[in-house]
Amino acid sequence: MLLHKMPKPLRALGELGLIEQIRRDFSAGSKAITLGIGDDCAILRPPAGCEVLVTTDFTLEGRHFRRDLHPPEAVGHRCLARGLSDVAAMGATPLAAFLSLALPGSMLAESAGRAWIERFFSGFRALADMHRVPLAGGDTSESPGGKNGVVLADIVLIGTAPKGEALRRSGGGVGDALYVTGELGGAAAELSAMLRRQRRILHVPTTEGHPHLFPEPRLDVGESLLRRELANACIDLSDGLSTDLAHLCRASGVCAEIEQTSLPIHPLALKLGPKAALQAALHGGEDYELLFAAPASILMPTSLAGVSITRIGSLKKRRSGGPLMTMLAPDGSHPELVAGGWEHFSGPAKRRRKRAR
Amino acid sequence: MLLHKMPKPLRALGELGLIEQIRRDFSAGSKAITLGIGDDCAILRPPAGCEVLVTTDFTLEGRHFRRDLHPPEAVGHRCLARGLSDVAAMGATPLAAFLSLALPGSMLAESAGRAWIERFFSGFRALADMHRVPLAGGDTSESPGGKNGVVLADIVLIGTAPKGEALRRSGGGVGDALYVTGELGGAAAELSAMLRRQRRILHVPTTEGHPHLFPEPRLDVGESLLRRELANACIDLSDGLSTDLAHLCRASGVCAEIEQTSLPIHPLALKLGPKAALQAALHGGEDYELLFAAPASILMPTSLAGVSITRIGSLKKRRSGGPLMTMLAPDGSHPELVAGGWEHFSGPAKRRRKRAR
Repeated sequence: MLLHKMPKPLRALGELGLIEQIRRDFSAGSKAITLGIGDDCAILRPPAGCEVLVTTDFTLEGRHFRRDLHPPEAVGHRCLARGLSDVAAMGATPLAAFLSLALPGSMLAESAGRAWIERFFSGFRALADMHRVPLAGGDTSESPGGKNGVVLADIVLIGTAPKGEALRRSGGGVGDALYVTGELGGAAAELSAMLRRQRRILHVPTTEGHPHLFPEPRLDVGESLLRRELANACIDLSDGLSTDLAHLCRASGVCAEIEQTSLPIHPLALKLGPKAALQAALHGGEDYELLFAAPASILMPTSLAGVSITRIGSLKKRRSGGPLMTMLAPDGSHPELVAGGWEHFSGPAKRRRKRAR
Repeated sequence: MLLHKMPKPLRALGELGLIEQIRRDFSAGSKAITLGIGDDCAILRPPAGCEVLVTTDFTLEGRHFRRDLHPPEAVGHRCLARGLSDVAAMGATPLAAFLSLALPGSMLAESAGRAWIERFFSGFRALADMHRVPLAGGDTSESPGGKNGVVLADIVLIGTAPKGEALRRSGGGVGDALYVTGELGGAAAELSAMLRRQRRILHVPTTEGHPHLFPEPRLDVGESLLRRELANACIDLSDGLSTDLAHLCRASGVCAEIEQTSLPIHPLALKLGPKAALQAALHGGEDYELLFAAPASILMPTSLAGVSITRIGSLKKRRSGGPLMTMLAPDGSHPELVAGGWEHFSGPAKRRRKRAR
């Protein structure tokens, strides 16, 4: 293999005209973008008085999605949603997105492959347009592995927030109430149903009601929390409530108690039966709702930007040797809540917990 | 495969403590970084009056490097150098780097794999320290493909430049002189020698004199060109002089003539013999030198920031139907210079040229 004599990745893709065409489609003007796709760097002009926020997230075939299972629009949507949700969690406003995308050469050679790519960008673009986020650049390459190559994406989101005001994980205080947006466990429930069917969903007529395929990053809620000073600390629920709450607790130096009966469980999760529904809500992950802490004295609205807000517990003082998280059960007991596996006090969950301390 | 039940990528890597340790190593303070690794986004504070520049570049095993050929320090170095060189080409100053890194699970399970990762970061860090670029975040994941998984990296560089002053590809004008930094063809020559030997270079005592393994991004030259207003247009030589000059010509709406006898050819390329040396200098790629245009009236220094500057030709008026690039040969003739394959007027190079128009 002659590395430098291989077709240059960008050129190889560009020859088919597909990527260049898609990139042109995205070059619609934005005041914040002084220079978009087509130079060594893009140039952005953040608003005066703002800090710049940056997040990157992989979307790798076989790890984060399956081509035989996920419709391509959902892959594009989720790729962008992962980055947007991180921006939302800081209460920030997205300024621009950058996409590094590697594709198997075979996809570009076949019309089915090209159709997949077009549908990927269609899903990506619909979400980008909804939140007025321009795609300002990135990289393209042929993925390694020849015929067995897979789709590899890395999304970069640049956001802005007024200086010193971005919401962090670390701002939670003892006595704060804990809130979540929307409903929990829906993404895990939908994925579980997809895996049971083991059949690819070919077309989805609407993105609504598909918490796994088309999660909604809570940008408007995040911006509202920041602007109205309604939150001390915030994180998005990408890894699951129990895992992300543990991050917030550790960063804030507090512990937390969740009230089981308060958890807003997604209707798709409720279909699984009460036990599995609770598991999905606590540990399911990829709901991309926001979890935030606010002083108990704040009269929290029941909804923000059209999204329901539910109080699910509170932050407490951390006691040496005490559990990081507990859950008030319907029977009045307070079992420990373990990140990533509430009921599994043996096996992986326990090992993970010990190591994480 | 249960997607959401797989070990969470970050946690899986974190269990070994290796990545977290490396990330801690990089968290050294920088005034420009308000918040580094460990929240949903990093927060950067660009200097007042500056625009923000962004570039992303893949480094994929099997496309951009081979684990059986490249020493790991060189892979880390080149990964970061690709991004830094894009920042240099705009005359900008790097503010922070972000690294998305996916690794095969097997690498983390074996000490040889962990040693590879440590050496990768050692090379990455040496270059980052040299240019005082903090690693402010990124993403980690297990790469797809199980045992056959490969190392996948995507580097993001954030840079800054005074408003409206960043160097672009598009600023070249008719009559401008064309210059390059350093010497050309060295990277292709070194890689070619490595491929002939087909033996992995285990340790490299010094990064100097290894234009392929340890290219030097020309940040100081770029900043100097911008500050001293010495360039109208600039691009870095990542794809090779002929390809990158074509980008500059198209963006600037001009054509170019190169003087063959003026080309500064790297000593490693000269070892290949005159014909191959010229090929390497024109089309080799990955030299990461800067190519820039400046008004002929400017008295250009012979070196900037310790790097030699060589005049190699000039920009001319584009004539309809005329070639985009020509080369003044030693015999006084002016053959067309074709991007990516000067002597190959048939085959891939010609096809590429037609499509690119």
